[in-house]
Amino acid sequence: MTALPHELSRRHAPRLQAALHACATREQWSPFRESPSSKIHGEAAPADGKARFEAMLGRPFELDQPGTIGSVGHEISPYTQEKLGIAYPKSDPDALFAAARDAMTPWNRLSPEERAGVCFEMAFALEEQAFVNAHATMHTAGQAYLMAFSGSGANALDRGVEALAYAYKAMADVPREAEWEKDFGHTGRVRLKKSYRLRPRGVAVVVCCATFPLWNAYPAVFANLMTGNGAILKPHPNGILPVALAVKRMREVLVCAGLDPNMVLLAADEREAPVTIDLLRHQACAIIDYTGSQRFGAWIEEHCADRLVYTETAGCNGVVVDSFDDIDACIGGLANGLCGFSAQMCTSPQNIHIPATGVRAQGGALDFGAMAARITAAIAERTADPARAAGLCAAMQAEQSLDLIADVRARVLASGGEVLLDSRPYAHPDFPDARTATPLVVAVDADRIDLYGEEVFAPVCFLIREASREAALENAARIARERGAISSYLYSADRDFIAQAQDRFAEAGASLWINMDDRMPINFAAAYSDYHVTGLNPAGNACLADLAFVANRFRIVQFREPVPAGSAA
Amino acid sequence: MTALPHELSRRHAPRLQAALHACATREQWSPFRESPSSKIHGEAAPADGKARFEAMLGRPFELDQPGTIGSVGHEISPYTQEKLGIAYPKSDPDALFAAARDAMTPWNRLSPEERAGVCFEMAFALEEQAFVNAHATMHTAGQAYLMAFSGSGANALDRGVEALAYAYKAMADVPREAEWEKDFGHTGRVRLKKSYRLRPRGVAVVVCCATFPLWNAYPAVFANLMTGNGAILKPHPNGILPVALAVKRMREVLVCAGLDPNMVLLAADEREAPVTIDLLRHQACAIIDYTGSQRFGAWIEEHCADRLVYTETAGCNGVVVDSFDDIDACIGGLANGLCGFSAQMCTSPQNIHIPATGVRAQGGALDFGAMAARITAAIAERTADPARAAGLCAAMQAEQSLDLIADVRARVLASGGEVLLDSRPYAHPDFPDARTATPLVVAVDADRIDLYGEEVFAPVCFLIREASREAALENAARIARERGAISSYLYSADRDFIAQAQDRFAEAGASLWINMDDRMPINFAAAYSDYHVTGLNPAGNACLADLAFVANRFRIVQFREPVPAGSAA
Repeated sequence: MTALPHELSRRHAPRLQAALHACATREQWSPFRESPSSKIHGEAAPADGKARFEAMLGRPFELDQPGTIGSVGHEISPYTQEKLGIAYPKSDPDALFAAARDAMTPWNRLSPEERAGVCFEMAFALEEQAFVNAHATMHTAGQAYLMAFSGSGANALDRGVEALAYAYKAMADVPREAEWEKDFGHTGRVRLKKSYRLRPRGVAVVVCCATFPLWNAYPAVFANLMTGNGAILKPHPNGILPVALAVKRMREVLVCAGLDPNMVLLAADEREAPVTIDLLRHQACAIIDYTGSQRFGAWIEEHCADRLVYTETAGCNGVVVDSFDDIDACIGGLANGLCGFSAQMCTSPQNIHIPATGVRAQGGALDFGAMAARITAAIAERTADPARAAGLCAAMQAEQSLDLIADVRARVLASGGEVLLDSRPYAHPDFPDARTATPLVVAVDADRIDLYGEEVFAPVCFLIREASREAALENAARIARERGAISSYLYSADRDFIAQAQDRFAEAGASLWINMDDRMPINFAAAYSDYHVTGLNPAGNACLADLAFVANRFRIVQFREPVPAGSAA
Repeated sequence: MTALPHELSRRHAPRLQAALHACATREQWSPFRESPSSKIHGEAAPADGKARFEAMLGRPFELDQPGTIGSVGHEISPYTQEKLGIAYPKSDPDALFAAARDAMTPWNRLSPEERAGVCFEMAFALEEQAFVNAHATMHTAGQAYLMAFSGSGANALDRGVEALAYAYKAMADVPREAEWEKDFGHTGRVRLKKSYRLRPRGVAVVVCCATFPLWNAYPAVFANLMTGNGAILKPHPNGILPVALAVKRMREVLVCAGLDPNMVLLAADEREAPVTIDLLRHQACAIIDYTGSQRFGAWIEEHCADRLVYTETAGCNGVVVDSFDDIDACIGGLANGLCGFSAQMCTSPQNIHIPATGVRAQGGALDFGAMAARITAAIAERTADPARAAGLCAAMQAEQSLDLIADVRARVLASGGEVLLDSRPYAHPDFPDARTATPLVVAVDADRIDLYGEEVFAPVCFLIREASREAALENAARIARERGAISSYLYSADRDFIAQAQDRFAEAGASLWINMDDRMPINFAAAYSDYHVTGLNPAGNACLADLAFVANRFRIVQFREPVPAGSAA
C-alpha cells in the first residue's frame, strides 16, 4: 500500500483537475460517496463501522504522537447521555508545535502536486472510515446517522478538496522561475535569472466545533497542508472522537507516503482544563482556523491579530416572507430547515419576518396568523412521529441548548409574545435516553429585537410580525449586517421584490437563498459551488473556500542573479 | 476626450491582457516610457513640466473635493531648503469617508473590465504629467531628476498596473453565475440557478511615504479601485505635492468617464497636526495600505487589527560577501546601491558582512581591510565629482537623516569601531542649498549588533567583521528574519555556498539578490517580475503584488434559487 508522494501526485492528478474545474464552473461534483447504502459499500460495511465504534468505547484511543503528558476525555453521547469513556492523549503544546515545525521542513520540499496527491490520498482514506466516523459523529455531535455519514463524511471531504484546489490554484499562480531582460541604456541589456520559492507561514491551530466536528476542519487542514503549514487540530471537548479518528488516519497516510506524520496533530482537552487559548497564543502559532461561537471568534480576532485568523462563527439567520408560487413546497422546505438537526447548524433559519399586511399565495392573501399557522402545522407534522423526528431533528449536542429553549420561552411570554408551538422532548426510537427537543415556535413583534436579535443555538423559531414586506426585508438585512448571517432566505413570487432584496442583502454583506423548497435541504451548502460565509458580517471573516482563504497562507521568497553575458537564452 | 467606462474597457483590453501575461511570465514589460528624453516626449515637454511645477509654488493647490475645512501645507524642498508655499485643502475625515462611500455605490456597478479600463486610463493620464511630477517628487522627496521621473513615474505606474492585473485575476476567478444540479434521492434532481456578486470591503486609507510618494501608492490605489473600494490618500506632510497631483488627475479621469470622482480623495496634513491616526481608526476605514517606518507599521498592525492592513515598512538589508568572479563589476554595483538616493530606499543595502578569513577574488584572497578599502574607494570615487554625486546620491529628504549620520559616527567611535569614510555634504551643481550627504562607511565587529541591527534611514554603511562566511550568512539571515529585510544580497562565486545561502534566506523569509553588478541598479525592483516584500519578516506583511495583496479586498455575496421544473437548461 505504500505509495510515495510523486506516485500519489500522478494517481490523483485527474481528480485535482476535476476539482479545479468544479470550482470554476460551480457545478455539482464529488469523488466521494455520500450515501451509506450497503449497495454501494457492501453488506458488511455498516455493521463493521458500528462495531469499530463500539470497540473504542471505554478504552484509551491509540494515537502515537509526540508530547503526550497524560490523558483527557470526558465525552458524553447526546444519544445515550452516557460517557464514551475514551481516553485521548493529553499533549504538551510546546512539544506539538516543535514536532509540527520539524515536520514542515521535509514536507515543504514536496511540490504542490505532490502535496495534493498526499492530501487526496488522505481524503480517500478518511472516506474509507465513513461508517465508524458516522457513529463517532452521532455520539459526540448528536447528528442523525445519515447526516453524520454525509455531513461529516463525503460533504466535509468535498469541502476539504475544494480548499485543496484553491490552495493549488493560488500556488500555481506563482511561477517557479523566469528570465527577465531589460535595457539599462548605456550599460546595455541585462538578463536576470529569477527563481521563486513558496514558503509556509508556520504552524496552524484548527479549532473545531462541537456540532460539525469535521465540516470546517477538513478545508482548514487541507488549505494548511497544501500551503506547507502543519496543523494542530483542537476538537471541542465533547467532539474529540471524530477528530481523533481523522488525525490518526491522516498520520497513517503520511507515514505510508514516507513522510513525517507530525504535519497533523491532535490537541484534545476537557472543558475543565481548556487548552485552546494556550495553543492560539503560543508564539509558534502562525495561523488560526476557528469554528465556533461569535463571542470566542471575536475574542480571537481581537487578541490574536498578530496571527492569520480565519473564522466561521454563527449567524442570526433570517427569512423574509413576501409571497409564494407554491406555498406548500416552500413551507415544507422552511419547516425542514427549522427542524433539521434541531437548528444546530450555522445555516439554520431562525427568524421568520412576516408582514402583518399579509402574504400573497394561491391567488389570495394569508394574514400573519394564517401564515404562522401554516409554519407551525408543518413543524408539528414533522415532529409528531418519533421516527420522522429522529431522522430530521436528531439529538441536542449540549444540555445548555435545552436551557436556551426554556429561557426564550420565559422571556417571550414575559414580554407579551406568544408561544405558538412548544418544544418538547420526543422519544427517540433507537435511543430512549437521547437528549431531544422539538422546535419552539414563538410569535413576537418586530420591535422586540432584544428577543430574537442574536443566534439562539437551539431549535427556536421566531415568527416576527413586521409592518410590511419592506420592513421585513430591512430588519432581516440589518440583523444580517450587524449581528451576522451565514444563510438568509427569501420567499417571494415578485421578481422586482426579489431584485430589491438581492441588492439589500448584498449591501448587508449576506448571501440570500430564494424560494428554496422541500426538494432539498434549504440550507445545504455545496462544496465547489456555494461560497460559504461572506466575511462581510459578524458571522465570520473568511469564506470557505475562495482565493482569500488560501492565498495568504504561503508567501514567496525570490532569488535573482545575472545571467553571464553570452549565455544561451 | 470623454470616454465611458465600457469604451475605456475596450480601449485598454489589450494592455490588461499584456499585464496579466507579464505577471505570469515575470518578463519585462511596460506600457509606459521611463526615460525623460525629449526625443520621446518632444522638445517642449521637459521645460513645460518644470514651468508647471514652478507655477504651483506659493499658491493654493486647486483641488475640488468635499469636506474642505481649511488649508494645510508646510513642505520644504530638500534641494532649496525653502518652503514650497503650496496650500492644500485641509479635510474633514467624516466628509471624506462619506463621500468615498457614496462614490462606491455607482462604481461597484461597473464590471471588473470597466474598472480596469478606467484605471488604465488614469495610469496613462498620470504618465502624461510625468515631467511636472518629477519636479514635484524632487522637491519633496529629494530624489534626483531621473529617478523622480521614472521611479515616481513609469516604474510606479507599472506597479500600479501590476496590482490592477492581480485584482482582475482574483475577481475573474469568481464566476458571475452557474447552474447546479444534484440528485437528492427520493425527491429527485434539483436544479439551482446561482449568481455571485462581488462586494467591496469599504473605504481604504493609503498612507504614502516621504521618499517614494507614489511607488507603493499606485499599487494600493489600483488594487482598491479594482476591487470596488474608494481610496483616501494620506501623503507624508513633506510629500503632498506628488500625491495631490496624482489625486487631482485621477479625479479628472473619473469625471471624464462620467463617474463620481470621490473614489479617490486627498487627506493632507502637517507634522504639527497629523491626521493619520484619525483616518486609520475612523469607523468607516476598512482597509489600510501603509508605507513608512517599522515602528508606526507595527503600531498599525497592533491597533488597527480589525481592518485589513497591508504594510511595507523598512528593511535592515544585509550583504553577505564570500567571493567574486568579477570583483570590479560587483563592487561597482554594490557601491551604486550604497550611494543610490543616499540609501533612502527600502531596498538599499546597509550591512556588509565580510568574513575576516578573507574574500576570494581574482585567484587570490582579500582580507577584511583590503575588502573594506575596495568598497570605500568605490564610494569615494562616485562621490568625488559633485555632478556624479548629484545624479547618484540626490538629496536628503529629512534633516533627521543628518542627525542619524552624526549619531552613528559618534556611537561607532565610542565603541571602538572605525570610520573608514566620513560623510560630508557635497556641493550640488544645480542647487547650492541642497541638503546632501555622502555615505558614512564604518567598520564594526560582528558582536556590535547594537550598532547595525536596525535600519538607519540615512547613507550609512556598516562593514561588519565576521568570523567566517558561514557566520556572515547566519548573522545576515538572522537580522533579516528578526529585524526585517526587503532586499538581501550575496556575492559568491561558489555555487554550493549560493545554494546554502538561498536555503538559509528562504528559511528567514527574505529574498536574496545574488552577484548583482554595476550593469543595473542592484536594488531595482521590477514590476510584474519581482515579488516586492515577502511578508515573512518585520519589513512588511504584504507583497506588492501577489494574489494575497488583492484577494481579500473584495468578498462574494451569493444568490441561489431553484430553476422551475421543466425549464430549459
